[in-house]
Amino acid sequence: MDIYSLKGFRDFYPEEMSARREVFSSIRNVANRYGYNEVDAPSLEALELYEVKSGDEILEDTYSFKDKGGRMVTMTPEITPSIVRMFSSKQQAISKPAKWFSIPKLWRYEQPQSGRLREFFQPNFDIYGVEEKTADAELISLANDILQELGLTDEYRFRISHRELIQGIIEEMDLSGEQREKLYRVIDKSERLEEDEIRERLRDIDLESSEINRLIDITSIDEGLGDCDKILEYTQSEKTERAVNELLELSRELERMECLKKSRFDPSIIRGLDYYTGIVFECFDVEGELRAIFGGGRYDDLVEEFGGQPTPATGFGLGDATLELLLKQSDQWPSEEIITDYYIAILGDTREEASSIARYLRDSGNRVEMNMEERGLSSQLDRADAVNAEKTIIVGERDIENGVVTVKDMDSGEQLERNLEEYR
Amino acid sequence: MDIYSLKGFRDFYPEEMSARREVFSSIRNVANRYGYNEVDAPSLEALELYEVKSGDEILEDTYSFKDKGGRMVTMTPEITPSIVRMFSSKQQAISKPAKWFSIPKLWRYEQPQSGRLREFFQPNFDIYGVEEKTADAELISLANDILQELGLTDEYRFRISHRELIQGIIEEMDLSGEQREKLYRVIDKSERLEEDEIRERLRDIDLESSEINRLIDITSIDEGLGDCDKILEYTQSEKTERAVNELLELSRELERMECLKKSRFDPSIIRGLDYYTGIVFECFDVEGELRAIFGGGRYDDLVEEFGGQPTPATGFGLGDATLELLLKQSDQWPSEEIITDYYIAILGDTREEASSIARYLRDSGNRVEMNMEERGLSSQLDRADAVNAEKTIIVGERDIENGVVTVKDMDSGEQLERNLEEYR
Repeated sequence: MDIYSLKGFRDFYPEEMSARREVFSSIRNVANRYGYNEVDAPSLEALELYEVKSGDEILEDTYSFKDKGGRMVTMTPEITPSIVRMFSSKQQAISKPAKWFSIPKLWRYEQPQSGRLREFFQPNFDIYGVEEKTADAELISLANDILQELGLTDEYRFRISHRELIQGIIEEMDLSGEQREKLYRVIDKSERLEEDEIRERLRDIDLESSEINRLIDITSIDEGLGDCDKILEYTQSEKTERAVNELLELSRELERMECLKKSRFDPSIIRGLDYYTGIVFECFDVEGELRAIFGGGRYDDLVEEFGGQPTPATGFGLGDATLELLLKQSDQWPSEEIITDYYIAILGDTREEASSIARYLRDSGNRVEMNMEERGLSSQLDRADAVNAEKTIIVGERDIENGVVTVKDMDSGEQLERNLEEYR
Repeated sequence: MDIYSLKGFRDFYPEEMSARREVFSSIRNVANRYGYNEVDAPSLEALELYEVKSGDEILEDTYSFKDKGGRMVTMTPEITPSIVRMFSSKQQAISKPAKWFSIPKLWRYEQPQSGRLREFFQPNFDIYGVEEKTADAELISLANDILQELGLTDEYRFRISHRELIQGIIEEMDLSGEQREKLYRVIDKSERLEEDEIRERLRDIDLESSEINRLIDITSIDEGLGDCDKILEYTQSEKTERAVNELLELSRELERMECLKKSRFDPSIIRGLDYYTGIVFECFDVEGELRAIFGGGRYDDLVEEFGGQPTPATGFGLGDATLELLLKQSDQWPSEEIITDYYIAILGDTREEASSIARYLRDSGNRVEMNMEERGLSSQLDRADAVNAEKTIIVGERDIENGVVTVKDMDSGEQLERNLEEYR
């Protein structure tokens, strides 16, 4: 019988897994150097967890079902609600700021396409308890260091905005609740749409053409973050002004952390999820060909809505599929070659001595494969080649009687006799 | 509102997560030293995958549901079927033996109890393509080295048997198919039952008391693996004799790999899963208080049943919950303390210099937390204590003007002035 994996799910074979682990290990190293602590949450949660504040889009696309106990449960489509639940339930005992990260597998029932899968890893980083924009700046600096550690230099840009900025502009307009909601969704998607399409969708909401022109101008702004006040030319809203001030504060922090050059102001960034409250940011490749590499922002109200004490919070999540595309495109995906330090070939009844040599080499930290089968030397040397062995130690009966083994350098083909005592 | 995690699911907070990652990292290190390659499989598979050969017990206890596309899917209750699927589908391209390991999260809808959860990690190790008992011996040696690496010495025993051994004995008896199946299940559970209970269950299957006595004697055998031929006193079955010979072969290999002393012969070990074909083994604490720490064995038919070429296979899985209990009981669970190398305190307008010091120290591999809030020195030093900082670097305005910073040793309280140049 033939059974396949589900569409949008990946099998990771050794070579690819080794590259992926190297990427995750770089991410962990940078997070640790910044003083973030790893946490992990269940992969299955009560459906209610997502009914608090996740966007409709997420709820529609989950793997949700009734468990054998009759409870509606959901395979985690994002980690933030779980992390907020964890923080809220032990808030008093936790020293603030809590700087947490996790590398969960997540699931969404979406149409698989380039950079979007049904099962994916999403490294996630959060800070709880800091109101100052230094927290958002630290996260962007952390993200920057992660991308640099992975070998990227100038292939990406942070696109930054503030939730209340577009909200302020929309509130100035004379719109019904339904129109506002629709408008919000068009702007959220505008990054991925051509101008013509945006115009058409705005006309569908019954906006006047002067308003459409103004919105197109606003969402087309693409300036250095320090010039985000340009948007004030289009609005007198107090909300917008407050948002601009917060963005300018962030811009100063980013300059201090040497991340301002890579930061752009992009008012079309609003993030689909309902729980964001302030600064929001995404990271894109400079070519603009890929989906967002990561995205996040402020969610200052969520801890309270989950039953905790009011606590400012900010964070971001990084999708592994887009990151992989960017790294491959930039020739920075780790090598998928797996090296073996020693292959141990066995000739005759020498398994006991071979085992003892293997033990010695493994205890010294080497990667050692020992032949397990009844077969001749040439077949064993083929296997040594297949596992990229650097050296093969040939343990033969007569050699062992003489207290020696033969060590073959697999690159040069050179063979040397070595004293058995060296491996004890 | 209050939302809790589901019963049988765990939240991992930083301290516990750090210990758990240390355990997984030890497991990865030993697996790598043995030349095993890490792989990973989806967490959701088509239900059919488990209908091939998994035991009924597993199927009853899964999280299975219909996805939005109308397909029956299952959250992986064990990893072996996925791994066999992966191996079978690329069999020709893979150099044999394939030595694979993975550390998946798995899910079973069982009643949570000590050492048994609904969501758990199960490090898993397999060898494809080796018929010789050297493969089973290598796996037991690998398991032994993992437990030693984790700090255990003599707290556990491998309990080993062979599937065909009890099958041979049962076939000698004059039983109906239904009786055989029931008897099989009683023996599988006998490790966890008192003798009286076993007798009662055997009577329930309508066995005669002479047969019951004989079965009790057989399942009570507890000898060194090299003495497994003792079982031949109770049977003349050819199947049993063949099984004993394989066990004796394994025993010789284990002696060569220095694992025989920890290996016991226990004919009551048969493993519930339907796909095992030959040697089976489990690992228990010597006190006999915990559930199995790991279990596995031969499944030589499974690759073929999944549509691949006939390929001998053997492997084992190690449950994280029981391992944790054993390590804690033996005082070998890793420390849950998290240390920070440097805390950077900021006094006045020195964030830019502080960031540059943090960058320098992080680039040198240190774990560094920098203050993000508007607050005084004593509050910052409290935080430095809370994150177990070894040193705090105080970056003050006047100091910076003089080209220096103050470095406080948090253990001794000693303060030293250091030149700013040292951090560039």
